[in-house]
Amino acid sequence: MGSQTAEVRRGPKPRPHTRDNLIRAGVRMLHESGFTATGIKDIVAAAEVPKGSFYNYFESKEAFGAEVVDSYFETGLADLAARLGDESVKPLDRLKRYFSDRADGFKEAGFVRGCMLGNLSLEVADQIAPIRERLAEHFGTWSGLIERCIAQAQEAETISSRLPAALLAQFLLNSWEGALLRMRAEKSDAPLNQFIEVVFGSILV
Amino acid sequence: MGSQTAEVRRGPKPRPHTRDNLIRAGVRMLHESGFTATGIKDIVAAAEVPKGSFYNYFESKEAFGAEVVDSYFETGLADLAARLGDESVKPLDRLKRYFSDRADGFKEAGFVRGCMLGNLSLEVADQIAPIRERLAEHFGTWSGLIERCIAQAQEAETISSRLPAALLAQFLLNSWEGALLRMRAEKSDAPLNQFIEVVFGSILV
Repeated sequence: MGSQTAEVRRGPKPRPHTRDNLIRAGVRMLHESGFTATGIKDIVAAAEVPKGSFYNYFESKEAFGAEVVDSYFETGLADLAARLGDESVKPLDRLKRYFSDRADGFKEAGFVRGCMLGNLSLEVADQIAPIRERLAEHFGTWSGLIERCIAQAQEAETISSRLPAALLAQFLLNSWEGALLRMRAEKSDAPLNQFIEVVFGSILV
Repeated sequence: MGSQTAEVRRGPKPRPHTRDNLIRAGVRMLHESGFTATGIKDIVAAAEVPKGSFYNYFESKEAFGAEVVDSYFETGLADLAARLGDESVKPLDRLKRYFSDRADGFKEAGFVRGCMLGNLSLEVADQIAPIRERLAEHFGTWSGLIERCIAQAQEAETISSRLPAALLAQFLLNSWEGALLRMRAEKSDAPLNQFIEVVFGSILV
């Protein structure tokens, strides 16, 4: 926050939204093109902010990337939590509807971009610890929401309790990320449909 | 091949292995750092070949990337086919041993790099059609080998035939890719162990 104040003092015109604009542009561009392919110059241009302002807000591209990951996940989190926690719908129906709606969305978008958490896990997690840590944390939150649905379905005896809800939730989330990965390679929603068929026809039974 | 001949003619000293050296360096570097982060300069330096030689062998970095993907997959293919086709081992044991050995390898390596096919599916499949097509083809081959194991286990009535072997194989392969993705984010083999537990304890039963 200190450097933000400094920027406002130095700049010819105060721009309180500069930081938000940079993050928003970062979410869009990192999701579309990845971390390495997106230059700071591109981000600054897309955010329509003064060229020199980037380092007033972020100490490095890596630190910026970690905040972009947070923003990407947190923007969708309220909707995710509301859908997976919607007690007016049976837990298993909630989960199935969630994945089906996501599959429809990817079909409409032309099978591109996928999930930024997954993309950056493969692109930069080995190299950039602060980004990797954010990814791990958000995957944990996401998995926890899935786990609660599965636990509720097990409590209601809709599905078997043989395997722990936590194990199933982790497996489902990772398999979903894998289905998205294959969707990108195939340019097809077959992997997403196969995921839904096996998960809801054979695993969660 | 025409341009290879041209290079040999022009160069001060014929280097028949230049092309192979470039591909080998490409496999190593693209696997470690990804496509965008690896420059042609880096590849040429690692391959210890003359700077100007790259474009004598490859018309573009994209065309080079497609050949690197082929080389990566084809190098491992004989071993993969031998393991998954080893009739002296029961089909389900073969499959389980394959994934367990892979998990051990990733643990030894420190949970980095993962699978190049998966990495490039998320990094460049949207943008580079020739690479995407190679990825899709190799995933298809890999999935076919898994499918044969599953079909044999179904024929032997070791596991249920309720779901088609082809569907299960695609799902397994994609889930494995997802487990590798999460392994990179967590720097842990928990996702690989969870994959093995759910697949062999609950899906292939």
